[in-house]
Amino acid sequence: MIAARYIGNKGFDLVQAEESAPKAGEVKLAVGYVGICGTDMHIYHGVMDARVNPPQTIGHEMSGTVTEIGEGVNGFAIGDRVVVRPLDWCGECPTCESGNTHICQNLKFMGIDTPGAFQSNWTVKARTLHKLPANVDLKQGALIEPLSVACHDVSRSRLQAGEKVVVLGGGPIGQLVAAVAKSVGAEVLVSEPNESRRAFAEKLGVKSVNPIEEDLAAYVEEWTGTKGADVVFEVSGVKPAIDAMTQVAGRRARIVMVAIHSQAPEIDLFQFFWKELELLGARVYEAADYDWAIELIASGKVDIEQFISSVTPLNSIGDAFASMDNNPQGMKALVACNVEG
Amino acid sequence: MIAARYIGNKGFDLVQAEESAPKAGEVKLAVGYVGICGTDMHIYHGVMDARVNPPQTIGHEMSGTVTEIGEGVNGFAIGDRVVVRPLDWCGECPTCESGNTHICQNLKFMGIDTPGAFQSNWTVKARTLHKLPANVDLKQGALIEPLSVACHDVSRSRLQAGEKVVVLGGGPIGQLVAAVAKSVGAEVLVSEPNESRRAFAEKLGVKSVNPIEEDLAAYVEEWTGTKGADVVFEVSGVKPAIDAMTQVAGRRARIVMVAIHSQAPEIDLFQFFWKELELLGARVYEAADYDWAIELIASGKVDIEQFISSVTPLNSIGDAFASMDNNPQGMKALVACNVEG
Repeated sequence: MIAARYIGNKGFDLVQAEESAPKAGEVKLAVGYVGICGTDMHIYHGVMDARVNPPQTIGHEMSGTVTEIGEGVNGFAIGDRVVVRPLDWCGECPTCESGNTHICQNLKFMGIDTPGAFQSNWTVKARTLHKLPANVDLKQGALIEPLSVACHDVSRSRLQAGEKVVVLGGGPIGQLVAAVAKSVGAEVLVSEPNESRRAFAEKLGVKSVNPIEEDLAAYVEEWTGTKGADVVFEVSGVKPAIDAMTQVAGRRARIVMVAIHSQAPEIDLFQFFWKELELLGARVYEAADYDWAIELIASGKVDIEQFISSVTPLNSIGDAFASMDNNPQGMKALVACNVEG
Repeated sequence: MIAARYIGNKGFDLVQAEESAPKAGEVKLAVGYVGICGTDMHIYHGVMDARVNPPQTIGHEMSGTVTEIGEGVNGFAIGDRVVVRPLDWCGECPTCESGNTHICQNLKFMGIDTPGAFQSNWTVKARTLHKLPANVDLKQGALIEPLSVACHDVSRSRLQAGEKVVVLGGGPIGQLVAAVAKSVGAEVLVSEPNESRRAFAEKLGVKSVNPIEEDLAAYVEEWTGTKGADVVFEVSGVKPAIDAMTQVAGRRARIVMVAIHSQAPEIDLFQFFWKELELLGARVYEAADYDWAIELIASGKVDIEQFISSVTPLNSIGDAFASMDNNPQGMKALVACNVEG
């Protein structure tokens, strides 16, 4: 089989890799499509080399078909179309014991900490699998992982129909959060400086605003009749959004921290006191978020097709990454890992 | 009647004030005891002169006895012993309409934004009153306001029996939070550099640690068996505690922001993502917090007597304030506003 390996400094090689039978509890998949995540782009830029340890096969937003089943695996058959929830939890730490396996104290993220999906076959633990319904194809399936991130973010926010939501940042995850929030029945505003991303939000059927040209806080105050937003999602990772999040939030608003801020920014804690704000960290997803994401696509409540910007064969994986580099228009680039996929 | 007025620069005067009958919806009280709050100390130091507008009668932690009842007031009789929940809300803004009158968008805090309780009589709206049970005396009653702050903080944290709690800061509110958390059945650790305050915590029956001399994060990790604290209360208002709060918090921990940070400190947002932390702002109290505080004292679940450091007559109010200035040993100084109180 063919495996693409990230070799450092924006480079990939393609190697002929050995195929091995799945061990007990494992399932072997023919990989269908693999999306390129923002984290994959960080790896591509070399900033995660210490963690990834190249040469390494990365990739974790995937769909595939079951081709071989290890001992003791029940509930799956050859030919089943599935997606992988790429988390490898220990099952033994206090956090796993409390049921929060997705934030396991020894969590390994598959495709970063262990080999990933940019290859023709991927062998994984059966406990990571979710089945695709008949009306969700493998291309759509590759979007379930990022859509589950958005479902988890919205789930953390306890969003209710009729509430007003501000999404700070209109990249792929911000737009998916907007789409999920809209599907819940919320009114959504995406704050995003880039024109093509604002146009994408409008196509989704949500409002958008350019925070560089307009006074976002004043805009939200008028939009909400002085009340402020009920829920804010910080998806941008930039400091002006950290300032905006406490300004646009109404009393008792929930702010979900979706972006990963590796620097510790200054935060207006006085507003947390004054308005009794709530800040909720959100990381990856739980099994229920995958189920929700699959249902949103299967039911048509989220039109996921419009998020697919391009499909590139595995042997041109470098082109797929290059096409996403500094490309705010691109939402989701897929890599096709098997001709038959 | 006699009213003490803050006149600026750590000064008070005593004036003979006119008594007026309560208007419709109002009740006139003979003031029993009034506690000195941290906010009163800020006023005393002159940092809130713009808001307080001296000469002004301040004070809001009080107990008293009903002496006159205005038109249309039901449920109160002359001689009833009561405490005031010193919030004046508008009842018309979106926040009041949603039921959160305590964070009303036009909230006036009685004793800061309007005249307060350091006088022999105080006329207030009847809607601010809570009755004292027979076994709670007026001295204890004056502690209900700060105890309600602690009840609100604990209520915001959704604390459960058996959970492990770190309180950062062992001043009066930190100790009251520790006492309420203990009454819920939590295990409590107070982090406090001052020796006498640590001794006070130990007397309450909770653990204490000196974060200057010990590695607090390592201490909590061992105490919780790597899990980290379930709930953290930041009551200190200092930057090292802002750093500590994200370190000692376990996965999915709730951090309640009790202290008022007027500067915007740098916060380790990465930990919010990694551990799915929750930050909850808390401001004043709701009616239910007052009911809870009264029940905690009446039932003996919180021994409030030990929080009373001194009782000073109104005509020596300046001495009471001076005794609390830079005095970490002092917990709560009361001012007796009527000889018969």
